[in-house]
Amino acid sequence: VPARLGALAVRYGCELRGDPELLVDRVASLSQATPGAIAFLANSAYRSQLMQTGASAVILAAEDAANCPVAALISPEPYLMFARIATELHPAPPIRPGVSGAAHVHAGTRIPESCEVQPGAVIEEGAVLGERVRIGANAVIGPAVRIGDDTRIMAGAVLYREVRVGRRCLVHAGAVIGADGFGMARDAAGGWVKIPQLGTVVLGDDVEVGANTTIDRGAIGDTEIGDGVKLDNQIQIGHNCVIGRHTAIAAMVGIAGSTRVGERCMIGGQVGIVGHLRIADDVTIAAAASVITSLEKAGVYGGAIPAQELPRWRRNAIRFGQLDELAKAVRKLGKRAPDAVDGKPGDET
Amino acid sequence: VPARLGALAVRYGCELRGDPELLVDRVASLSQATPGAIAFLANSAYRSQLMQTGASAVILAAEDAANCPVAALISPEPYLMFARIATELHPAPPIRPGVSGAAHVHAGTRIPESCEVQPGAVIEEGAVLGERVRIGANAVIGPAVRIGDDTRIMAGAVLYREVRVGRRCLVHAGAVIGADGFGMARDAAGGWVKIPQLGTVVLGDDVEVGANTTIDRGAIGDTEIGDGVKLDNQIQIGHNCVIGRHTAIAAMVGIAGSTRVGERCMIGGQVGIVGHLRIADDVTIAAAASVITSLEKAGVYGGAIPAQELPRWRRNAIRFGQLDELAKAVRKLGKRAPDAVDGKPGDET
Amino acid sequence: VPARLGALAVRYGCELRGDPELLVDRVASLSQATPGAIAFLANSAYRSQLMQTGASAVILAAEDAANCPVAALISPEPYLMFARIATELHPAPPIRPGVSGAAHVHAGTRIPESCEVQPGAVIEEGAVLGERVRIGANAVIGPAVRIGDDTRIMAGAVLYREVRVGRRCLVHAGAVIGADGFGMARDAAGGWVKIPQLGTVVLGDDVEVGANTTIDRGAIGDTEIGDGVKLDNQIQIGHNCVIGRHTAIAAMVGIAGSTRVGERCMIGGQVGIVGHLRIADDVTIAAAASVITSLEKAGVYGGAIPAQELPRWRRNAIRFGQLDELAKAVRKLGKRAPDAVDGKPGDET
Repeated sequence: VPARLGALAVRYGCELRGDPELLVDRVASLSQATPGAIAFLANSAYRSQLMQTGASAVILAAEDAANCPVAALISPEPYLMFARIATELHPAPPIRPGVSGAAHVHAGTRIPESCEVQPGAVIEEGAVLGERVRIGANAVIGPAVRIGDDTRIMAGAVLYREVRVGRRCLVHAGAVIGADGFGMARDAAGGWVKIPQLGTVVLGDDVEVGANTTIDRGAIGDTEIGDGVKLDNQIQIGHNCVIGRHTAIAAMVGIAGSTRVGERCMIGGQVGIVGHLRIADDVTIAAAASVITSLEKAGVYGGAIPAQELPRWRRNAIRFGQLDELAKAVRKLGKRAPDAVDGKPGDET
Repeated sequence: VPARLGALAVRYGCELRGDPELLVDRVASLSQATPGAIAFLANSAYRSQLMQTGASAVILAAEDAANCPVAALISPEPYLMFARIATELHPAPPIRPGVSGAAHVHAGTRIPESCEVQPGAVIEEGAVLGERVRIGANAVIGPAVRIGDDTRIMAGAVLYREVRVGRRCLVHAGAVIGADGFGMARDAAGGWVKIPQLGTVVLGDDVEVGANTTIDRGAIGDTEIGDGVKLDNQIQIGHNCVIGRHTAIAAMVGIAGSTRVGERCMIGGQVGIVGHLRIADDVTIAAAASVITSLEKAGVYGGAIPAQELPRWRRNAIRFGQLDELAKAVRKLGKRAPDAVDGKPGDET
Repeated sequence: VPARLGALAVRYGCELRGDPELLVDRVASLSQATPGAIAFLANSAYRSQLMQTGASAVILAAEDAANCPVAALISPEPYLMFARIATELHPAPPIRPGVSGAAHVHAGTRIPESCEVQPGAVIEEGAVLGERVRIGANAVIGPAVRIGDDTRIMAGAVLYREVRVGRRCLVHAGAVIGADGFGMARDAAGGWVKIPQLGTVVLGDDVEVGANTTIDRGAIGDTEIGDGVKLDNQIQIGHNCVIGRHTAIAAMVGIAGSTRVGERCMIGGQVGIVGHLRIADDVTIAAAASVITSLEKAGVYGGAIPAQELPRWRRNAIRFGQLDELAKAVRKLGKRAPDAVDGKPGDET
């Protein structure tokens, strides 16, 4: 959907330098843009590409405007403006209402006429769909599931019985929502007795769930995903977790059962959080961190230990295995050296 | 299914304090229970909730009975009792025998009348199902797969050809059992020649497989999952692994090819175990640990390095990268300080 | 497909010791082989099994030939020879051309007669299949997807719109190719604005994609997987990554957006690589490593810190959290000890 620069500037509150009648019809990167495209500069690493860009216009911050050889939309938040303008120029493909003859809808289940149900989708007894819901090919909507208006469930996703999904959500292919939590008790013989998982999963509005992500149903009570939460691919959320509004979680994060994550958190890829913890609002956790105690304070937490060349890494990893002995040796040395390290007056022999 | 306290006490070997005629019809948490519900106290963190509970009865240990304001079922293992009573009060939904007209069963394959096959399920040539097997919507049962009595395969799970599943198993949505193991040889040009994966996967009885978990078929010989093994979501089991009976594995664990894990092990979330190792019986491994040598002795192994605030973490991670040098410096200091650290008599210059 | 040893020796350039007319019809492990089978010895750990093998022939290196009690195919690369011979003896099951009546092919989409489309597969508008393509049961091929000759898409895999797959690829069950990359911008209220993901995913020839692996479509421009790349199960490749030819990646690896991995790299299980990095050609990364800076040089990088018994691990992990202070203490001690550690002349008080 093409748009004029002047209209974009007004609609999104940017300052325009250039011809308001100029038409753009797509977004592109600075380096690959051609006339008709609008690009953006939000990361100083790409500043050198600005002078040579083939774009018709660039979204950028005021301090970069002087170096922009083409029309400019100036905003203190160029990346956010880019997101909005890209959404306007490239809207999601429109829904095509109707239930495919190759879909399998339970006899007693009514699908609103505004919904699209693709081939092979299975919608079970008692499911309730809002308006303009799209169910992708071979997705499975379990019994008594409820889905809000304008939500899209992509191909092959599975929603177990009674799961509730809000409005304007996007659930990607292969996601599984509402499978049993991992709850069991050990018996005297060492075997396991399964504990029925009686709760469900409740997703708020505007939630995105990545491909092959799994969110388990609660044991007693529900697993809750707040409004505006964004989950990347291959995340695992354990039973009875609560994820606060507008929290964003990168791929491959695992959160064990009953942990409560606050609002507006950002959690990096491959982070692991053990069960029964509390993560405060506005916590950021760097990729690959292991969280094994509650984080009660907003802030940024790490992290990963960076890979090194293998022989060096191995030597260091062996030393890690002896770290307590090393620290004790240092303390002992400190005691022998007057006034040093942790030597207190009169501490030396 | 409601039950009287007296009957529950007899059936599960608990001591009853209270009216044996009292009827309970559901489980609930201590804090949210209302009359008619039975709750449990198995974790001292929740002891403070006991006095205010709205439950009709509580399952708990003898030392907590004095503080219980309502009827009590006393057991040395309240969590295990809870598992059993919850299972009785909340049985799995009954199977509804029959093959959906929207399922696709190969012409030559006979499905016992006691089985339920849901819409969109595909059952290929030569598959053999036991009695009362349930195949979920859009699940795929490959050629010559064998499934034991009372096993449930949930929506969208895929069993490749010849996979064998025992009795009373539960395979969750999106699980893939029997895909090719990751085996290949490098050729002179740096390319890869695939090695045919000729074995299969054999699951014992009472195995649970979590959502989106993958278990690869053996290269030569089979991958084996023992009786009573419980696998959480998004686990990866490599080709030719053997997992011993009653071992429980939490989400996102990866076990590389040909590793043998013992019986009754408990493996925490995101643990990684490299290939060709042996893990003894009764080994517990804490979340996020990396296992790169065999663990020949029963016991508990760690683990993760807890996240810290980022500036502090970064300083420590940099020091880790210099740890070998640090240890050498300490050793050198020790040699200079008579009788210190690892200084032996006469060792100093 | 049985073969004579003489023919195998000629075809694959091995030296034969034994009867060229001897027929073998399958591969087996040294320890479990019976007459008619051919085994291999490529790992010295299994050398002790050679003398007792029941195989009719063994593929091995020259230095092991003297101890081989049966016919031998001698090669400097026995594992590679084994891969080739196993492929000849155990070819993949042949394709059975035809579109199942229970598949759902969009009315305007033409499927070549040499293709096999299994029940429940969905092929959407404008998809283009090459010759002898196999689409597994309940797989979903999105609009305008292009798939090259001889590629197999296994059960339940999902290819989003416009994804392009080369020739002779193998995509395993549950893989999701082309879901949206994880791109969004934060607005003033702390919420997230989704950035349309306008690129697609392009797979070269001879690519293997493991079960439940996810490869995201590019934001602007494409995510690219080079010829001959082998991806194990449950890998996540972020948007706009580029993976070089013949790189092999083990299970559960996560690669964040826009990272470029070179050719012929080998990446161990559970490795994490953050976004916007460059990994050179011929880099090997050991399992569980965290890569947070570019690796510009070919070589081997680690790694994991091996698990220890828990009490010991805990002590060491606590010391890790104080490592910077420890290092400072050592430096201070060094200054007090003339000529020691990092003490420079005149540095002592």
